[in-house]
Amino acid sequence: MQTIFVQFKCRPGRAYAVADGLVEAIEEVSEVYSTSGHYDLIAKFYLPDERDIGHFVTERLQTLDGVADTFTTVAFKAFGRG
Amino acid sequence: MQTIFVQFKCRPGRAYAVADGLVEAIEEVSEVYSTSGHYDLIAKFYLPDERDIGHFVTERLQTLDGVADTFTTVAFKAFGRG
Amino acid sequence: MQTIFVQFKCRPGRAYAVADGLVEAIEEVSEVYSTSGHYDLIAKFYLPDERDIGHFVTERLQTLDGVADTFTTVAFKAFGRG
Amino acid sequence: MQTIFVQFKCRPGRAYAVADGLVEAIEEVSEVYSTSGHYDLIAKFYLPDERDIGHFVTERLQTLDGVADTFTTVAFKAFGRG
Amino acid sequence: MQTIFVQFKCRPGRAYAVADGLVEAIEEVSEVYSTSGHYDLIAKFYLPDERDIGHFVTERLQTLDGVADTFTTVAFKAFGRG
Amino acid sequence: MQTIFVQFKCRPGRAYAVADGLVEAIEEVSEVYSTSGHYDLIAKFYLPDERDIGHFVTERLQTLDGVADTFTTVAFKAFGRG
Amino acid sequence: MQTIFVQFKCRPGRAYAVADGLVEAIEEVSEVYSTSGHYDLIAKFYLPDERDIGHFVTERLQTLDGVADTFTTVAFKAFGRG
Amino acid sequence: MQTIFVQFKCRPGRAYAVADGLVEAIEEVSEVYSTSGHYDLIAKFYLPDERDIGHFVTERLQTLDGVADTFTTVAFKAFGRG
Amino acid sequence: MQTIFVQFKCRPGRAYAVADGLVEAIEEVSEVYSTSGHYDLIAKFYLPDERDIGHFVTERLQTLDGVADTFTTVAFKAFGRG
Amino acid sequence: MQTIFVQFKCRPGRAYAVADGLVEAIEEVSEVYSTSGHYDLIAKFYLPDERDIGHFVTERLQTLDGVADTFTTVAFKAFGRG
Repeated sequence: MQTIFVQFKCRPGRAYAVADGLVEAIEEVSEVYSTSGHYDLIAKFYLPDERDIGHFVTERLQTLDGVADTFTTVAFKAFGRG
Repeated sequence: MQTIFVQFKCRPGRAYAVADGLVEAIEEVSEVYSTSGHYDLIAKFYLPDERDIGHFVTERLQTLDGVADTFTTVAFKAFGRG
Repeated sequence: MQTIFVQFKCRPGRAYAVADGLVEAIEEVSEVYSTSGHYDLIAKFYLPDERDIGHFVTERLQTLDGVADTFTTVAFKAFGRG
Repeated sequence: MQTIFVQFKCRPGRAYAVADGLVEAIEEVSEVYSTSGHYDLIAKFYLPDERDIGHFVTERLQTLDGVADTFTTVAFKAFGRG
Repeated sequence: MQTIFVQFKCRPGRAYAVADGLVEAIEEVSEVYSTSGHYDLIAKFYLPDERDIGHFVTERLQTLDGVADTFTTVAFKAFGRG
Repeated sequence: MQTIFVQFKCRPGRAYAVADGLVEAIEEVSEVYSTSGHYDLIAKFYLPDERDIGHFVTERLQTLDGVADTFTTVAFKAFGRG
Repeated sequence: MQTIFVQFKCRPGRAYAVADGLVEAIEEVSEVYSTSGHYDLIAKFYLPDERDIGHFVTERLQTLDGVADTFTTVAFKAFGRG
Repeated sequence: MQTIFVQFKCRPGRAYAVADGLVEAIEEVSEVYSTSGHYDLIAKFYLPDERDIGHFVTERLQTLDGVADTFTTVAFKAFGRG
Repeated sequence: MQTIFVQFKCRPGRAYAVADGLVEAIEEVSEVYSTSGHYDLIAKFYLPDERDIGHFVTERLQTLDGVADTFTTVAFKAFGRG
Repeated sequence: MQTIFVQFKCRPGRAYAVADGLVEAIEEVSEVYSTSGHYDLIAKFYLPDERDIGHFVTERLQTLDGVADTFTTVAFKAFGRG
């Protein structure tokens, strides 16, 4: 499983429509939050190991209506108490 | 009560109309100032604890006519002389 | 419950010790990941509503040995399928 | 009366001591908050009209133990419901 | 008397028309220079103590034809040989 | 196989010793180049799918003598003429 | 032989079309990857020694449909196990 | 004689036409190079001592078709083996 | 006559000593102000036409005790009502 | 022949000693200027085609006493009236 965080800058007033669209239309989404700071939203996605992250971000996420820019951070290791 | 600071970059010549709009239409506003530096305005808002800050900023503030960009800073603790 | 993301820039070679320290010593931690980009780590924390986020970040997280800088993002609303 | 906002970046783990110092030692302080984002603190100060803001910031605030950097924003007009 | 510096980024090829407009139409102007670096112009203005700097910058300066962006720096104390 | 690019800022005069160290001591390295711009070096690494990229970068690369900072970019899909 | 890395920021949703175009139409391309971070793509090109890199980037690459911005890094020396 | 360096960011695909225009139409030009990095071109100009650099940059250079932005650096002293 | 603006970032708490030193020891100084924003001071200097600005800034200004960084802006044309 | 521009940020007060050192000790130097802006110096170097630019910059230039940071720009094509 691959884990990524994507931050979204949306066109003014469109962030919640984008967030709703992520939850409704993107099944790989794990969490979506509106946030403080420069970006409007942060979302975490789990993708199968063989899945192309770049395709997912640029073809599925950047094409959602209202998205102005995205920034992708790959999560490498999940540290746990295990 | 939640306290946030929002800085506004407005379209050229529109900052004071935005400031007036904040005072007139946004009852959660506590203070609005025009400022030096990159942003035109800084405003402080008090929101009830259960209120969604992200919704407030993106749906109520970013949609005011003349707003070009916003930056949200959450105030955590208010230090006082107690 | 309050949700925050904190990104950590650590002194060279110290990021995994910091991550282990987060998991071992900070019970409020929900997830810790090493990441791509400028920061070495991102961590999500859940804090009780009455907890002071600023105190938590500056007194508990910034004081961990190996931490060079932190950046705090507050998560406002969790969007869900609910 | 002059109104300024000063944001403080403190040395790791020192922000709350700085905040306490502001409240205790700087009578011109109106509010001090710990915050999200790059800076640790934001404070608002009211200074008499004839007071030199630059002297106040560099001689009184920057010299507080634990302060690493400051950023000063001048508030011009306070918009109100008046 | 209040002293401010305002830096102007103008639309390509419009900086000298903006500078001429400042000299002709803005009586509070003290100096206007074209400059090296990112901005095209820097200007110094003297405003009466009771004058609202924010209103002056956003309503009078940003509305000049050809202005793309402004950055305002407030001068606090004038050091002199006095 | 995972592919990453890591850019290195080295302490003054140390970049070629770092580059030699990468080639000699890091078997996962595929290419190392000195470069124009802000960073001194860019290197590409191939890591097995199960390998932890974050551990590799922070424990193996950042600890090389002379490294001042690193920036990690993950390569998702390799486009080819297939 | 000259080696360059070019990073591409594409218009939203257009990165994979750009990547396909690079592979199909630009014979000097060696590798194209979609990536994490600010840019959508990184590509490596090998050009003959006498070839003008600037012409190649601005006339051949920037003119591909969907490209919004490019950043060119020249690779100087390839370090190897030789 | 005054010496300045001007860096040009051009609209996509237009940098070489701008460079040709500089050589053909601007007699004060000494050198024009296409470059690596963020800007597309760097050019050096020699202007007579009494010439207004700001007017030259904003009226003659920024108005060339295809120029999106300029950054001007003034060269003070030329060090030489003299 | 050449006109330059130099902005100074000083070590914490040292800006006013630097400003006093400028006024007392640098006869070319025309104005010194403490300022809002990132820098602590802005100063304007008039230098004879044949004077080397770079030497003046790096040898005379940067060596003043308490100066951490400087940024030099050259003023080209002074616009006036003349 | 390869042409590069290198910008130098020097330790406070050291820029002219660095410039003298470049002229005296680095035979590949073509021009050295002190400059406005963030960097203290810009220098142009001509290197034989087979010469390693990265080695030259990091081993010969960054090691000059007083150099704090360098930024390397490669000049691709020299446009001329030819």
